[in-house]
Amino acid sequence: MRQKKDLPHAFRRTAKSMAASFRVSKKDLTTRARLGRLVTAHGVVETPAFMPVGTQGTVKAMLPRDLKEMGCQILLGNTYHLYLRPGAELIRDLGGLHRFMSWDGPILTDSGGYQVFSLGAMRKLSEQGVRFQSHLDGSSHLVTPENVVQIQEALGSDIAMVLDECIPHDANRDYVRDSTERTIRWAERCLRTRRRTDQLMFGIIQGGMYRDLREKCVQEMNPMAFDGFAVGGLGVGEGEELLQSIAAFTVGLLPEDRPRYLMGVGRPEDIVSAVSAGFDLFDCVLPTRNARNGTLFTSAGKITIKRAEFADDPRPLDEACDCYCCRNFSRAYLRHLYMAGEILSSQLNSLHNLYFYHRLMERCREAIRQEHTDFWSRETGATFSQSV
Amino acid sequence: MRQKKDLPHAFRRTAKSMAASFRVSKKDLTTRARLGRLVTAHGVVETPAFMPVGTQGTVKAMLPRDLKEMGCQILLGNTYHLYLRPGAELIRDLGGLHRFMSWDGPILTDSGGYQVFSLGAMRKLSEQGVRFQSHLDGSSHLVTPENVVQIQEALGSDIAMVLDECIPHDANRDYVRDSTERTIRWAERCLRTRRRTDQLMFGIIQGGMYRDLREKCVQEMNPMAFDGFAVGGLGVGEGEELLQSIAAFTVGLLPEDRPRYLMGVGRPEDIVSAVSAGFDLFDCVLPTRNARNGTLFTSAGKITIKRAEFADDPRPLDEACDCYCCRNFSRAYLRHLYMAGEILSSQLNSLHNLYFYHRLMERCREAIRQEHTDFWSRETGATFSQSV
Repeated sequence: MRQKKDLPHAFRRTAKSMAASFRVSKKDLTTRARLGRLVTAHGVVETPAFMPVGTQGTVKAMLPRDLKEMGCQILLGNTYHLYLRPGAELIRDLGGLHRFMSWDGPILTDSGGYQVFSLGAMRKLSEQGVRFQSHLDGSSHLVTPENVVQIQEALGSDIAMVLDECIPHDANRDYVRDSTERTIRWAERCLRTRRRTDQLMFGIIQGGMYRDLREKCVQEMNPMAFDGFAVGGLGVGEGEELLQSIAAFTVGLLPEDRPRYLMGVGRPEDIVSAVSAGFDLFDCVLPTRNARNGTLFTSAGKITIKRAEFADDPRPLDEACDCYCCRNFSRAYLRHLYMAGEILSSQLNSLHNLYFYHRLMERCREAIRQEHTDFWSRETGATFSQSV
Repeated sequence: MRQKKDLPHAFRRTAKSMAASFRVSKKDLTTRARLGRLVTAHGVVETPAFMPVGTQGTVKAMLPRDLKEMGCQILLGNTYHLYLRPGAELIRDLGGLHRFMSWDGPILTDSGGYQVFSLGAMRKLSEQGVRFQSHLDGSSHLVTPENVVQIQEALGSDIAMVLDECIPHDANRDYVRDSTERTIRWAERCLRTRRRTDQLMFGIIQGGMYRDLREKCVQEMNPMAFDGFAVGGLGVGEGEELLQSIAAFTVGLLPEDRPRYLMGVGRPEDIVSAVSAGFDLFDCVLPTRNARNGTLFTSAGKITIKRAEFADDPRPLDEACDCYCCRNFSRAYLRHLYMAGEILSSQLNSLHNLYFYHRLMERCREAIRQEHTDFWSRETGATFSQSV
């Protein structure tokens, strides 16, 4: 791997270069969970926090007003999708992504790498970047470490992510080693491209399922002037056990004074477990995608709303929930909307599932603050894996 | 036609039987428009009023909260759809339609007749009623004047409609005469079936495009103890001129002291014109259906949001509108949502179009109250027929 001396001083982490965008305010007594404050150009994020995914400039089926009202602090925007449609320059010319989607809170944008590898066709990977064909119209595009930064600067997000290669979980060691080294070189190129001073930038730790490669990746990236680190390449089919162990191992290597983001994870119990391992930020399509498919999270487990048993059930989805959906509608009504294919089904279900995730994060923060040491084992236990 | 003496006293209109559910508070100076108050079991409706259509127990893509917030006073529910799915008994057992859909304001239900004639397959019409096959699963059903009242009583709406035959606009005179006579006999059977005292019932005037048949229908139904009258069989392809002239002719025959409802009409200019002719209540799927198709009403005419010219248009949909959509989003964003097939497109567009309709009704009421005599010709003029 590269020598640290190769990295010019300007892109090395120094006390001065790291304006205190993140501060840990309290550590949990029995786990590695921590309470933090992440300061961005559009406001503060109290961590641990969940970021709803706003793929195409909208969190599907949600008014920004309702996200705000449920305590949502920060959204994730997908650079790949916004770049292809409606285009980053257009969004920039219209005043940036915040104004475009009418969300005045913090936004994190991914680099688009994940979608290039999962949605793009005819991918051709080189040191320069990745050439791919749009899933929308087949047009050819090149993403590079440089242009993903430029695109994210055009979008004007509060936190930009570096370009990384998303490695299949079963890739062999040689491939993972080469890919991870390239991801590190790309990360440095991202830092060099950076121009905006009002946008934080997070590095991404890769290394697949190999602990020594994860370790090397952290060693290389730690000195770089990133405002935070994400752990990538997990939740891609490697299984629960490997996900948990690699995530916990990797987060333990990361500096304490910068936010740690576990990308694309996941289920409520995975998130609580990752918080207890020391992660601060999360995103996942699960609450919104499940909502549209009629799978709903409740304090008593998951509910598949289309099941016949709910046809005449007058109870709210979750007796313990005080979201707009649970305060106003019965399971029977929600089942009816789902069976009838009504748009309101997606609206109410998304509202509830996101509310559930935000209350979960609130309870994580409360557990650290109030030293509820029994919270962690209880919430990662059997509750979530039950299905009603 | 039938003799008035056939109608038993209990079903005849008397001063006593007509508790003052409707009162005209002011008449317009130059037109037949009037301001009224319609009192229902779930609150007062200030007329003229527009009723958004809640086909399957939901106004498509709208939270009840947002309907309330925009000043929506009364909803329309479709008996045909609710009867087939999820079923009227189920809704009754869950506490009625209001609780089911979490709308505590007034609800008018139609009889289902219109959908039986437009959606049902293999229809067989007899004196008893109409046998038809469900558009959902082909199952066979019989609607009669008696059971449409029972179904609406089970739903618990505030205003029930009688069963009528919806006649094609080009039906010949003999057919229209026979059908209208049957509709009158059905109306009487509806009144006889009525049990709830907290539900108003409106008769429906048919008669096709024949003025003398419309007149006879009014003569027959006027003595009946209906709380209001609807004019049906218009807006079914007969053309703008015939619609306006038959509507204006028929409304002029109706008693002054009961609310007058023009069913299924329509475009903003049609509604203003019908208000000036003396109608009080309206329903139409146009604002919500158009919204989902990307056709939006503005003070400067209709907008087709998918048009390329809006791709980079930073202006709100309607500069003169202060709805949530126009206060927060650009035309460029709304176009993007539409092109990307996002659910939020239907949500924001529906919100705007319904807001537009409600402001229009508010302006109608204001014009009568404040004696803005130039309002009527201005609003039924060229404005609405322009497309941007």
